[in-house]
Amino acid sequence: MLPRFYAPDLEPAAGATVYLSPDESHHLARVMRLMTGDHVAVFDGRGVEWRGRVANASRDSARITLTEAVPSRLPVVALSVVQGVLRGDAMEDVVRDCTMAGVAAIHPVVSARTSVKHSALRGAADRWRRIALSSAKQCGIARLPDLYDLLSFEDWLSDGVPEATFLLVEPDAAPSDVVTVRQLATAPVPPAAALLIGPEGGWSLEERDAALAAGARPLSLGPLTLRARTVALAASAALIAIWE
Amino acid sequence: MLPRFYAPDLEPAAGATVYLSPDESHHLARVMRLMTGDHVAVFDGRGVEWRGRVANASRDSARITLTEAVPSRLPVVALSVVQGVLRGDAMEDVVRDCTMAGVAAIHPVVSARTSVKHSALRGAADRWRRIALSSAKQCGIARLPDLYDLLSFEDWLSDGVPEATFLLVEPDAAPSDVVTVRQLATAPVPPAAALLIGPEGGWSLEERDAALAAGARPLSLGPLTLRARTVALAASAALIAIWE
Repeated sequence: MLPRFYAPDLEPAAGATVYLSPDESHHLARVMRLMTGDHVAVFDGRGVEWRGRVANASRDSARITLTEAVPSRLPVVALSVVQGVLRGDAMEDVVRDCTMAGVAAIHPVVSARTSVKHSALRGAADRWRRIALSSAKQCGIARLPDLYDLLSFEDWLSDGVPEATFLLVEPDAAPSDVVTVRQLATAPVPPAAALLIGPEGGWSLEERDAALAAGARPLSLGPLTLRARTVALAASAALIAIWE
Repeated sequence: MLPRFYAPDLEPAAGATVYLSPDESHHLARVMRLMTGDHVAVFDGRGVEWRGRVANASRDSARITLTEAVPSRLPVVALSVVQGVLRGDAMEDVVRDCTMAGVAAIHPVVSARTSVKHSALRGAADRWRRIALSSAKQCGIARLPDLYDLLSFEDWLSDGVPEATFLLVEPDAAPSDVVTVRQLATAPVPPAAALLIGPEGGWSLEERDAALAAGARPLSLGPLTLRARTVALAASAALIAIWE
């Protein structure tokens, strides 16, 4: 894989010039030690990626000349993950892995059983955005997930739930109308979907009922009880895979 | 969830007595500080679990009296994961997450692009077994995956591949007859399956060809390039979910 840089304002055209931000320029010139003429790739974070060559390896304003477009590899379905905030670095793993899985949006929410202290969330949104960017650069995806500001789950629900919204439920707590991944695999592919995943302690009964009343469907992954930090990846990977 | 203990020799019958190993007794009496009369669960690592009460909280030979069977929650399909050994603690994450996902067997293999030093694998099998046990105790599953001894991938293949064997391939390298998870979701559910997952650098072309010649089918998860330590979980979760 070519060294990849993030250029949100790139104009996608052969011969076009792209200026990198100071952070990205530093990464190019100082960390990667690239020089004029070296082959690189740039992506705009919205799914567009081009190959190019370093025109000027300036350490605060590097310049790249675009050569050819890279075919985009994004999941068919724009999947949003609504995740009850997890403790410690677990939430960082969720952001990292959802970015790599090609999730379109991440909504961190505070719910009844959220056990993260408010003070631990200061600056978290910026940290998560940095992690998403570095994950995207590493894994070769050209889209960054939209990282929304922290909301209460109640407030998130009050905006109305999208058409294909699934509330992940524990095997024990599965209501009778629970849908399985196998069933979804034979249903029409939705253009977009949302996946609601509770924090370590799961959703409260009230939250579950409110989400179902708002139109979410209960979804079971099967008899698994995974680590909280891996649930979003496992569920997203399963949904993205059946919708390809 | 009740405190859970591993008792490979348990005789599943109400009123039966189970003696725990010194390690498990230590965990019961010293770590969890349980006492006579406390409610616990014991499982045999092969899918059988019973509730019981502590009859004697001895710290080297604790005794439990069984009261009632716990319904088993195991995936329908016995899935074996054949994993090219990963560096550092990444392989431990694979063992941990595969155990929780309900994988039936794990075959660590050395392949062409394995970058782990031989010396780093000394004692690894015992460490992985301990991780599988503690993961099973935590997550509520009653089965431990069979953790096979390290083999070369070539030797693993030479034993013949089971009926439903899938070689996970990168999106870029997908041969034309690649099967998708969506396609598998509408095919008959096999009684058992195997999933072959390369190390950080993937399978070599020779390994891929040898696996396909031996009867493995190439499987794509979609346009994802995940962290090596998360691939086994994402793929296993997707397969287990479509087979429920």
